[in-house]
Amino acid sequence: MTYCVAVKLKAGMVFLSDSRTNAGLDQISMFRKMIVYEKPGDRFMCLLSAGNLSISQSIREILQTEQLKDPDGGEPITIWNARSMFDAARVLGSAVRHVYQRDGEALRRSGIEFNASLIFGGQIRGEGMRLFQVYSPGNFIEATAETPFFQIGESKYGKPVLDRVITPDTPLEEATKCLLISMDSTLKSNLSVGLPLDLAVYEADRCTSDRVVCIDEHNAYFHMLRSTWGRKLREAFDQIEAPDWDPTGPLAAPSGRHAALRKITDPKDRLI
Amino acid sequence: MTYCVAVKLKAGMVFLSDSRTNAGLDQISMFRKMIVYEKPGDRFMCLLSAGNLSISQSIREILQTEQLKDPDGGEPITIWNARSMFDAARVLGSAVRHVYQRDGEALRRSGIEFNASLIFGGQIRGEGMRLFQVYSPGNFIEATAETPFFQIGESKYGKPVLDRVITPDTPLEEATKCLLISMDSTLKSNLSVGLPLDLAVYEADRCTSDRVVCIDEHNAYFHMLRSTWGRKLREAFDQIEAPDWDPTGPLAAPSGRHAALRKITDPKDRLI
Repeated sequence: MTYCVAVKLKAGMVFLSDSRTNAGLDQISMFRKMIVYEKPGDRFMCLLSAGNLSISQSIREILQTEQLKDPDGGEPITIWNARSMFDAARVLGSAVRHVYQRDGEALRRSGIEFNASLIFGGQIRGEGMRLFQVYSPGNFIEATAETPFFQIGESKYGKPVLDRVITPDTPLEEATKCLLISMDSTLKSNLSVGLPLDLAVYEADRCTSDRVVCIDEHNAYFHMLRSTWGRKLREAFDQIEAPDWDPTGPLAAPSGRHAALRKITDPKDRLI
Repeated sequence: MTYCVAVKLKAGMVFLSDSRTNAGLDQISMFRKMIVYEKPGDRFMCLLSAGNLSISQSIREILQTEQLKDPDGGEPITIWNARSMFDAARVLGSAVRHVYQRDGEALRRSGIEFNASLIFGGQIRGEGMRLFQVYSPGNFIEATAETPFFQIGESKYGKPVLDRVITPDTPLEEATKCLLISMDSTLKSNLSVGLPLDLAVYEADRCTSDRVVCIDEHNAYFHMLRSTWGRKLREAFDQIEAPDWDPTGPLAAPSGRHAALRKITDPKDRLI
């Protein structure tokens, strides 16, 4: 399995991926799922991938040389010369379709779904940052102010903290912390998501990043974050008043229009 | 969708279910997914159900009259006279199989999987409390000290807090609070899980419970818990030191054997 998450803020973008790949439970390997494409000052792009590893590796390989015809008759469009992230995402969609054309039918014959899920974001000089989620058919959607993050892979464990914290105004450092906590929840609940992590933080309008790190079990910050978050969560939990069963108290007092369940006390009791 | 969770502690058991049922996104109804069977002083049993509603309603209906042959030639075994929760769970498994025999083939012809997922727990006088998860084929597993809770339905959003808090020694009030927080995370992230909730708290060895309540949006305790938990989580989050990018600092300093990702800076760069 995999967990990757990316967020687009006013201040920049943050990308985070795990690196565990498994075929069943007994064949577990480390493969990195992030790739950063950069021409400093001109373009910064980050691709995160989930799904079948043979498909995502092929997509990445093909993406390096994939070309779209320029409707104006100019040079073919690649991720390296695209004038917009939208065009770069189209190039990526096209790479996905090429892999599908090559492998889709043979995979289907083996009962394997063509399964690729990608997050692709960044900035090309001359336009704002953009963040896309690209699906198996090569189509894609774009993050907006209302939905500033995308997750792929094992996304549910780590979603509650993102829902609570992330808005377009979240500062970069805070978003980085939030994504690492989201990853921590996922690591804790799903063994098939594993360290090390790749983290890339991009500041708006720089078209380059020097904040790309690999985080493993020895990383002091992640270590601190995991243990502090666990302890703070527990403290937060302990500070919430426990329920009491006083029949006029806040938990047990009748409220609204829904009665408590009627108990079934006999085989002849009707259920409805 | 559905979210149900139950936990077995030394002090007792807690059961919690939502009540939203949907067929697609535009047909949403309220159906209660908990049912309590009780002969006070003799047996307390609680059944939580997820999956296809027609199947789970049929199972509940049939369970009222389902009988297993007693190998010793005595009276047929029902949930009302079973001597152990294990036998009661067998009766439930048998009810599931009866519904499968009746509906399974017709459902399959319509492309619908026979999909039922049940949690069944309680206590019968003379033995300890027991908690089971029952699957579509009618087979079941039992909770242990190492795995003291079961979840069915939309379980992932609410799992991290259970993993962090629940042990067999957790007091009943604390477990109740924890299950409500687990439900809150699920409600927040999945629209197809909805209020009101049914909550049943059982104290060990009483073979009855007067702690069965329905919690809707007007419930003062749940209201307090939701807003306090959101605020406390945020405080916990804010108290964690933000990452800094000092190259010798805890986040960015090289650690372990994994190098940071190499950036791809040119179409001719090799990826591997």
